[in-house]
Amino acid sequence: MGGDDGLKATVPAAILAAKKHANVCFTLVGDQKKIAYHIKRHGGEKFANIDVFHASESVGMDEAPAIALRNKKDSSMRQAINLVKDGSANACVSAGNTGALMATARFVLKMLPGVDRPAIVYALPALCSKSPGGRRPVYMLDLGANIDCSADQLFQFGLMGSVLAQSIHHTKNLPKVRLLNIGEEEVKGLQVIKDAAELMKSCDAINYDGYVEPNDIFFSEADVIVCDGFVGNVTLKSTEGIIKFLSKVVKRSFTKSIFSKLCALFALPVLKKIKEEFDVRQYNGASLLGLKGVVVKSHGYADSIAFLSAIEKAIEEARESLPEQIAMVYAKVNHQK
Amino acid sequence: MGGDDGLKATVPAAILAAKKHANVCFTLVGDQKKIAYHIKRHGGEKFANIDVFHASESVGMDEAPAIALRNKKDSSMRQAINLVKDGSANACVSAGNTGALMATARFVLKMLPGVDRPAIVYALPALCSKSPGGRRPVYMLDLGANIDCSADQLFQFGLMGSVLAQSIHHTKNLPKVRLLNIGEEEVKGLQVIKDAAELMKSCDAINYDGYVEPNDIFFSEADVIVCDGFVGNVTLKSTEGIIKFLSKVVKRSFTKSIFSKLCALFALPVLKKIKEEFDVRQYNGASLLGLKGVVVKSHGYADSIAFLSAIEKAIEEARESLPEQIAMVYAKVNHQK
Repeated sequence: MGGDDGLKATVPAAILAAKKHANVCFTLVGDQKKIAYHIKRHGGEKFANIDVFHASESVGMDEAPAIALRNKKDSSMRQAINLVKDGSANACVSAGNTGALMATARFVLKMLPGVDRPAIVYALPALCSKSPGGRRPVYMLDLGANIDCSADQLFQFGLMGSVLAQSIHHTKNLPKVRLLNIGEEEVKGLQVIKDAAELMKSCDAINYDGYVEPNDIFFSEADVIVCDGFVGNVTLKSTEGIIKFLSKVVKRSFTKSIFSKLCALFALPVLKKIKEEFDVRQYNGASLLGLKGVVVKSHGYADSIAFLSAIEKAIEEARESLPEQIAMVYAKVNHQK
Repeated sequence: MGGDDGLKATVPAAILAAKKHANVCFTLVGDQKKIAYHIKRHGGEKFANIDVFHASESVGMDEAPAIALRNKKDSSMRQAINLVKDGSANACVSAGNTGALMATARFVLKMLPGVDRPAIVYALPALCSKSPGGRRPVYMLDLGANIDCSADQLFQFGLMGSVLAQSIHHTKNLPKVRLLNIGEEEVKGLQVIKDAAELMKSCDAINYDGYVEPNDIFFSEADVIVCDGFVGNVTLKSTEGIIKFLSKVVKRSFTKSIFSKLCALFALPVLKKIKEEFDVRQYNGASLLGLKGVVVKSHGYADSIAFLSAIEKAIEEARESLPEQIAMVYAKVNHQK
């Protein structure tokens, strides 16, 4: 029910997913009548791997998380997470209210032993000449769930991010984990970051690779980049802002005069390709790590293509039993302590 | 003597400045012989408003600030700041080691009463349909001098930024000051930011305008954006990184095939204009605020055009007696407390 476009985006996405992943079942949780209407409209009735679970309420995009958690026991969000809790579903995907999703997931599913709050992780498309398409994912966390972090929390983000990167990409070697800092020298930056570096260095389960500067996020060889949720959120939003800024400038420049419009005509095929390459829809889906269950948050403005990406992220993480893998590594690390 | 290109950039910049600002005197501080060579090479001998002050040492770009401060008493940086201290110069401009410049300026010039450390401020080119060129400056501070800030420090950054914006642009109304935060709602973000907001609200000398999200830095109506030095540095460097990332993608796309190269040929005039518009050289120059004197830091990679911008910033600030103006506003605010 969530997201800017609601069922207009989520139902077609589920149908696309059902078509593409015949061996996965999709339960659409929310207003039964409305969902049925959209399923019918998009020709989804013929898919046996789609069913609907009715929920009488839904959480508003701006609703206070605590209020939603207390008062909306039959919200689509709450019921979807309940399905994960009771084992009827292996993962939950939502485009709804991030705060409410986090609070509800934490309350219903509970955290893995030793984890205090979920961390939000997102795969950024870093440049890589060796990868197909010239890109490879860099997992960055936390992106806003924990705005004030201790060194131990940063260490834990590194651990969880590392398990995520390794399980999704099936790499033999441990992923390279770096801490975001304002300099590469060891003496630079906040004390909490220096302390986290020491914790990471002394842990066998983490391949700690030093600091990364913000201007190198898209160029470094890091697989996982760790920062506190405030800085992560600022970095992600600045990046969004500057991309929007640049596209406005490019658009304005190519429509300024008849001459520039003529130039645009010739440049169009390439500009279109660049736009395609910047189609962030394929990267949509941020995972909430540290929970006893898979929960993926889609961007609110996701259309069906973008929401499909979030669904596929959830499928991957469920297939790899990501929460169990994180729990195992945690247990091993705590045992060594 | 500082910067990646040293005298090759700074001397021609000084000559350009001497030509443009006939009523301003320029003292070039550093190795007399080398400077004389570059002055001659670029035809600067004919300008009576250029002179040279010999300094036998120079601070390396990677030298530890404390070491430079203790051991290099005859460095070009130290001597240039000495000239400001003894009144022989009204401002100092350097492309050298930022840490050493800050430490030396703080040690020699001292801070204004009530200011603990300098803040680094930079004017970002925000979009504005009403301004000529479609841009207007947004002053952002701190950008790295103070990585761990109290609410009172953030408040002071707002105050100093506000005095800077008003004195340079001679606006009647107080500039709009916003705090960088990860949400626009009052309840969001770090406690220290919420506390700073309260301090700003209750101060007549600041026109506090609420929070600004990082994706709105280039779009908001703020004149001054305040954040701690860690977050400011991360934001600035992420922006640099994403611009570099995008230009690589655009370049690669336009040179991929013969067809795309052909498209590039037609798009070239517009692409060139866009590149010109993104010529950050005209924005070069970050000011160190809170000192008893004007000190402007040029980016290390500045060429002569960029270094000229930094020089002109210093001229403006010296003309407006910026340190004295800040001191006056500080005295008034402290008096009201």
